[in-house]
Amino acid sequence: MAGNSIGKEFVVTSFGESHGKQVGVVVDGCPAGLPFSETDVQADLDRRIPLQKPELVSGRVEKDSVQVISGVFNGLTTGAPIALAVENRETRSSDYDSIRNLPRPAHADYPATVKYGGFHDYRGGGRFSGRLTVATIMAGAVAKKLLGYFGVDVLAYTKSIGKTQTDNPLSPQGIRQRTYLSAVRCPDLACAKKMEDAILDARKAGDSLGGVVECVALNVPVGVGEPLFDALDADLAKALFSIPAVKGVEFGAGFGLTKMRGSEANDAYQIVEGKVVTVTNLAGGILGGISSGMPITLRVAVKPTPSIVKEQQTVDLSKMENAKIKVGGRHDPCVVPKAVPAVEATVAVTLADHMIRAGFIPKVLKRKK
Amino acid sequence: MAGNSIGKEFVVTSFGESHGKQVGVVVDGCPAGLPFSETDVQADLDRRIPLQKPELVSGRVEKDSVQVISGVFNGLTTGAPIALAVENRETRSSDYDSIRNLPRPAHADYPATVKYGGFHDYRGGGRFSGRLTVATIMAGAVAKKLLGYFGVDVLAYTKSIGKTQTDNPLSPQGIRQRTYLSAVRCPDLACAKKMEDAILDARKAGDSLGGVVECVALNVPVGVGEPLFDALDADLAKALFSIPAVKGVEFGAGFGLTKMRGSEANDAYQIVEGKVVTVTNLAGGILGGISSGMPITLRVAVKPTPSIVKEQQTVDLSKMENAKIKVGGRHDPCVVPKAVPAVEATVAVTLADHMIRAGFIPKVLKRKK
Amino acid sequence: MAGNSIGKEFVVTSFGESHGKQVGVVVDGCPAGLPFSETDVQADLDRRIPLQKPELVSGRVEKDSVQVISGVFNGLTTGAPIALAVENRETRSSDYDSIRNLPRPAHADYPATVKYGGFHDYRGGGRFSGRLTVATIMAGAVAKKLLGYFGVDVLAYTKSIGKTQTDNPLSPQGIRQRTYLSAVRCPDLACAKKMEDAILDARKAGDSLGGVVECVALNVPVGVGEPLFDALDADLAKALFSIPAVKGVEFGAGFGLTKMRGSEANDAYQIVEGKVVTVTNLAGGILGGISSGMPITLRVAVKPTPSIVKEQQTVDLSKMENAKIKVGGRHDPCVVPKAVPAVEATVAVTLADHMIRAGFIPKVLKRKK
Amino acid sequence: MAGNSIGKEFVVTSFGESHGKQVGVVVDGCPAGLPFSETDVQADLDRRIPLQKPELVSGRVEKDSVQVISGVFNGLTTGAPIALAVENRETRSSDYDSIRNLPRPAHADYPATVKYGGFHDYRGGGRFSGRLTVATIMAGAVAKKLLGYFGVDVLAYTKSIGKTQTDNPLSPQGIRQRTYLSAVRCPDLACAKKMEDAILDARKAGDSLGGVVECVALNVPVGVGEPLFDALDADLAKALFSIPAVKGVEFGAGFGLTKMRGSEANDAYQIVEGKVVTVTNLAGGILGGISSGMPITLRVAVKPTPSIVKEQQTVDLSKMENAKIKVGGRHDPCVVPKAVPAVEATVAVTLADHMIRAGFIPKVLKRKK
Repeated sequence: MAGNSIGKEFVVTSFGESHGKQVGVVVDGCPAGLPFSETDVQADLDRRIPLQKPELVSGRVEKDSVQVISGVFNGLTTGAPIALAVENRETRSSDYDSIRNLPRPAHADYPATVKYGGFHDYRGGGRFSGRLTVATIMAGAVAKKLLGYFGVDVLAYTKSIGKTQTDNPLSPQGIRQRTYLSAVRCPDLACAKKMEDAILDARKAGDSLGGVVECVALNVPVGVGEPLFDALDADLAKALFSIPAVKGVEFGAGFGLTKMRGSEANDAYQIVEGKVVTVTNLAGGILGGISSGMPITLRVAVKPTPSIVKEQQTVDLSKMENAKIKVGGRHDPCVVPKAVPAVEATVAVTLADHMIRAGFIPKVLKRKK
Repeated sequence: MAGNSIGKEFVVTSFGESHGKQVGVVVDGCPAGLPFSETDVQADLDRRIPLQKPELVSGRVEKDSVQVISGVFNGLTTGAPIALAVENRETRSSDYDSIRNLPRPAHADYPATVKYGGFHDYRGGGRFSGRLTVATIMAGAVAKKLLGYFGVDVLAYTKSIGKTQTDNPLSPQGIRQRTYLSAVRCPDLACAKKMEDAILDARKAGDSLGGVVECVALNVPVGVGEPLFDALDADLAKALFSIPAVKGVEFGAGFGLTKMRGSEANDAYQIVEGKVVTVTNLAGGILGGISSGMPITLRVAVKPTPSIVKEQQTVDLSKMENAKIKVGGRHDPCVVPKAVPAVEATVAVTLADHMIRAGFIPKVLKRKK
Repeated sequence: MAGNSIGKEFVVTSFGESHGKQVGVVVDGCPAGLPFSETDVQADLDRRIPLQKPELVSGRVEKDSVQVISGVFNGLTTGAPIALAVENRETRSSDYDSIRNLPRPAHADYPATVKYGGFHDYRGGGRFSGRLTVATIMAGAVAKKLLGYFGVDVLAYTKSIGKTQTDNPLSPQGIRQRTYLSAVRCPDLACAKKMEDAILDARKAGDSLGGVVECVALNVPVGVGEPLFDALDADLAKALFSIPAVKGVEFGAGFGLTKMRGSEANDAYQIVEGKVVTVTNLAGGILGGISSGMPITLRVAVKPTPSIVKEQQTVDLSKMENAKIKVGGRHDPCVVPKAVPAVEATVAVTLADHMIRAGFIPKVLKRKK
Repeated sequence: MAGNSIGKEFVVTSFGESHGKQVGVVVDGCPAGLPFSETDVQADLDRRIPLQKPELVSGRVEKDSVQVISGVFNGLTTGAPIALAVENRETRSSDYDSIRNLPRPAHADYPATVKYGGFHDYRGGGRFSGRLTVATIMAGAVAKKLLGYFGVDVLAYTKSIGKTQTDNPLSPQGIRQRTYLSAVRCPDLACAKKMEDAILDARKAGDSLGGVVECVALNVPVGVGEPLFDALDADLAKALFSIPAVKGVEFGAGFGLTKMRGSEANDAYQIVEGKVVTVTNLAGGILGGISSGMPITLRVAVKPTPSIVKEQQTVDLSKMENAKIKVGGRHDPCVVPKAVPAVEATVAVTLADHMIRAGFIPKVLKRKK
């Protein structure tokens, strides 16, 4: 059943459940000498909840407060594993008693019940809850701090919610400055307003929405990633599919490339200011599993929240007969805004791992003067 | 630089280059007692090349002949690593000398040159060649034989080539019987004809096409896959992105789910013949990273072959100036048909690994009477 | 720098330092349905400190109180990672300021300072402290509970302290009942008294002692362990050398076998009550890296505590000149008694991993009636 | 059953059986740009067989001829996996038919039969044969070439055969020059003569001998190895126990340390020519799992060859009754001489892995001018 660690040189191990004592993470392999404190994590944790517009999220507005348990000494990483944890406080487990034998459609309830023989902690989705992205975000905070030290910047944002999509060109600076101004994490603020309305509409209908998160990683040097099985895109995809509700991942023009001819799809090379760059970046910065030096761009499909108030057809596992379910409890009508920092963290964690593996990040950082 | 193994209990390690002596693979963790012989591999290898219509592929029509080097004794697997290899025979390495300093757009040439300091074997794409899927296909032959022992069936086929797509409903039986009748590996034989024409058109124009490969895995039991990082979809995606030219992976309705509401996207449960099944299967048989017992369905985006005859803009790395390139050599105008058995093999390898991990496949098979 | 996890299917990840907030461990891969609570861990933690005779240990008599953070629900494991932690309370970090630049002979101070660029947490030995065995013991408590479910019993005890050794035959029952009656963890209580005296003598002289821990694992079925690299003895040895102060590991008659002839060393087979057993067990229950069904026996060499009051020659790293050091602080004059539960836990963790891998432990345990 | 790979950044995967087609190995993670050819491996393979005195070994004097299958181009490593293989030629499998149901005492026959359900390749010991060290030696040749590039030198030799032991001081230069002059691989040539006699005596008696192999690694920099689970000594021990017939491993003074006081066992530091060194090296160059910069010294206990001509008691597994066995076939009366290059290779492989992991070996070597 093991499978809660990811990475080879920057290894992330998560623990905790939605309604247990804590959600936590152990980050092993961060070089020594990196300035790091609770503040670095807290900022990212706070970005999970769009406080601007609490009606966009579930009633469970949990102000998570991180504790750095190990691996940091005098404000700098030591080279030892960094353990980070938050307490679970806002738990109303009784919400889940009535539906214990009624697996929620599109949720992990049914396969988890079979897999774990009914022993799993079903409260609040347990180990399958979107709340587990808290662990990823904490690990991502370490990764982002480390990547930042080497000039690498990872920026995620909402590309679409349901059928509302932004197609305006977005500069990295625009994304950086405006994404978290918007409650739906879309830096195109006009479009963001429409997305909010779409979510509230769905909520009113007892329904939910999905969407697409786009992410760009800047300044990744040429040569990150290994050919074949540990390809950079392969490991990014693996990590991204670990985020609950993700159903698709594509790089560069992705599925769109399948409709182009080679002469349209191939990114031509050119020399600009003495450097090799491509004219276009339809490949999304990765060729043969290795970074090309161009921005890494990817898109992640997030399905609509499975928990909806609308009545749905399910089965009663205790009686093995058909049944109806209305999912109560507190659920986000759209998890895309919360997925944005999770995608960013996930990409950062994978890049940190591969940059160490490719030799771009040393085992000890020089102390900054 | 390590990264040429995949899997935890069914571990696949590949070796070889396009123009080296051999392409080979070591499969570690196959249970003892499985009937297995060269014939099992050869059948799959033969499906790589659409001999029905050689003009659809490169001039390099290589009849690969597999050698079982270890791990099989008296026609049965022994529990020891199974090593499989084919010789590389059809190599015309001189084709590559003239373009050594001219990285082919959309190919791994440029990042590989930087990453390996120019020491990599550049002939025929070296370690980045589509020919490396031979290793995957050989490992997949072991996985498929093993899965077949437990009733699991993996079927891949061409869904689209360029803008030509089949939308006819396809039964598993139809896919099984007709996919390899078609040179483009599309079981909708009327559509297949159009796809062939599209490829020949592109070839005539010195250009290339991509497409989408769809895959379905039948009879996977409930409970395969681990939550979070070793999610079944996560590991499938990682493996699939290791196939050269893959730029996107989605499960079930994938990116399409992002445009649905929860009430449309959620697969309702029902009891049919005493079993829990879903009415629809938009989730593609995986929930929370764990198989739900429904067919696993996925789609893989394959980009157009980067090597095209049409003149393209590139750079001369020895002079660091802009240059032009016309890629000679022997290249497939569309690699989608060859990707079909590679996708099938890749999915099989990942399922075998996870079925062993989840306890569905024992360490020793009972000898068949 | 990653390297703080061990195991493939029962994976143990440790975190924490001697003087940080906590020492903790994440156990991933424990099957669902195992009865488990804080009491199970606490019993083992309490055995670390020989309260019968506090003068045998350092002044730091820390009553560790375990917290089960995740992975247990309603008194049973859930299949999710089990996180366990204790707080560090008895820390007097100031003891270490004066010797920061004076590496203690035979301690990790010097290589750690070089490896981590001086950023490591040097207080109390930091990540290299014997206190880290608390993490192993907590993980071992899970492993032992799991192994006990399958009838496997792991028993460690002190074989020798300095030159005082017990050579009396010891039955498993005797070891089980008497080991922890003795402050030095030697079930031969007459010999134990001599060992205590030897330790107190060394302490009086400002000096320290080492010794040998012996361990036996009963009822391990035939067939646990993989040939070659993941041999059972290989993985046991790896885990045992992770315990601080361990300098040698041998199985069965170990180094003694090198002086025998084959006819003396080979354990003859015989049938006893319909089972294949060996007449002797000089191989220590492992052949070709695989358990033979006989008791697994091993011996672990523990060096004398490096921290001694006696003046020693060292260097001052800040001035790069020779210096003298008398190690103050609170140190055990002999760590062998504390190593006993650590060896037991380490062996249990490795056996749990390999028994899962070999298919002897299922992924879900049947609920006990 | 997987478990045939070792290492994290320099990963060795073995395949093959004693009487199968080939014994081979895949080395993944060797940096690009290392001069390497078949000659490098062949030299080490040739050292396996003491041709000076063929009567010391089994009748199977196999001149192994290595083939470099992948990963080397124009005489330099490319960064891709290096596959190496030798053919098995000298196989007389019929020798094994008569004893198929009679497990040889102290051999892996019995546990392997149970573990693999009788499906394993039993001919010549199959996967458990000492012949598998050929794979290790081939991988070690890559590792030694790589380490040599960074000045690290690994030297193994026979310390004792049965009760005959050399206690003369041996300089690295003496070991390097004389070890392979001696058929028993002992650089103390006077003692070597006695060892030869001891082996011939044992052979005459239809019996066998074991012994101790000592190994020293020179010029390993300070800081190689990770604390706790991936300690350098832990990983060295794991790798060494993978060599068939190894029953004990100790570092520095090893088990001897358990009888010393701390004041005797601790290696005092001093400054010599501006460098921190220790006066003695009883720790064997490893402290807290990390290299200290002193020579790494270790000893490996090799048991007497289990296959002996003398009649032994065993069982007939087909009848489940007691039986007698005289092991025919061709067996070495003492495998210690063959273990010497295997120990050397094993230590080299582990050091290469850890030196890459610790950042001492870059991913691409500069081309030598």
